[in-house]
Amino acid sequence: MEYPSKAIEEAVNELASLPGVGRKTALRLALHILKQSENDAERLGGSIINLRKNIKYCEKCHNISDDPLCKVCKNPRRNQHLLCVVEDAKDVIALESTHQFQGIYHVLGGLINPLAGVGPSMLNIDSLVSRINEGGISEVILAFSANIEGDTTAFYIQKKLAKSGVKISSIARGIPVGTDLEFTDEVTLARSLMNRTLLAVPGAE
Amino acid sequence: MEYPSKAIEEAVNELASLPGVGRKTALRLALHILKQSENDAERLGGSIINLRKNIKYCEKCHNISDDPLCKVCKNPRRNQHLLCVVEDAKDVIALESTHQFQGIYHVLGGLINPLAGVGPSMLNIDSLVSRINEGGISEVILAFSANIEGDTTAFYIQKKLAKSGVKISSIARGIPVGTDLEFTDEVTLARSLMNRTLLAVPGAE
Repeated sequence: MEYPSKAIEEAVNELASLPGVGRKTALRLALHILKQSENDAERLGGSIINLRKNIKYCEKCHNISDDPLCKVCKNPRRNQHLLCVVEDAKDVIALESTHQFQGIYHVLGGLINPLAGVGPSMLNIDSLVSRINEGGISEVILAFSANIEGDTTAFYIQKKLAKSGVKISSIARGIPVGTDLEFTDEVTLARSLMNRTLLAVPGAE
Repeated sequence: MEYPSKAIEEAVNELASLPGVGRKTALRLALHILKQSENDAERLGGSIINLRKNIKYCEKCHNISDDPLCKVCKNPRRNQHLLCVVEDAKDVIALESTHQFQGIYHVLGGLINPLAGVGPSMLNIDSLVSRINEGGISEVILAFSANIEGDTTAFYIQKKLAKSGVKISSIARGIPVGTDLEFTDEVTLARSLMNRTLLAVPGAE
């Protein structure tokens, strides 16, 4: 594809480096930016530069934060004994939006993925082990995506924490709420059978 | 949704203003940018600011251009008698990539769309009429999208140029190459019947 100007070619090259953005979409975005005011383009471009330049991470849980300690770690009302381990910041946002979790977080910054060259030493696993060894945590919940990388990371952390004596659990895998059983894939269905929830125990009253 | 830092909230707000980018995609893009180097983020943000700031348009055809005259208008090999009218720069790129058109272009900068508040005076139609009236153009090809806005704009330009005595044509509407006839919608099929192409005339030899 030949572009009519160098500025547009550069912008298309840069925009196409974003995940899920191909060259055609990048061109559409570039032409959209051209139709906006110069101020709008400066705000968009500036926010991207500013985002990367001024980013800080929480000293305790490694989540994105404006201050040395993030909002969750600073909040005295959160349960300091319940620790939820997640892949990255967007998982914290997803879990927070359920309003169900009152504990604290630990953000790994990725999942173990040998194919992509991501080993355990590149993630915040050592600092997780230190946090557990310092004591005070009674349960660690592993909240990873239900894929190979998530399972590998969960297995690795489980081994690392084996001697710590802390309770380790994983978020449930099963049929998503609102989904028909007949349309659920076999692996999910098998897992949901295996991890079935007890509703009533006869004689237990 | 509550964001862990102000920088990320601003970036999400700005990225979500792009067409086809919702807040979830914007967050995914922002987290991707965070994983890149500071240089990468500066190149991306800078290319957006630079694009809008340094954009120039060809004085003759209004296409995006680095110089006062665009590559096509500057090229002495192009047929100066054949003028193709298009909506915007991405249509020029699409037509150029066919390597079939040897004429020159005129970029309107949009299509007439009363619902979106786009009237003929906001487009480069007056300069098109002037170009035709200056003489030298023998045929005007209208190459618009096959929708209401495209048809409206074609009709308006046709009326405006009625007295100029120039030949006016439109790119063909029909079954896209590679498509099965049975899966083509009725309107397209009706148009392709109406605008059928003569293959052989008996007795013409």
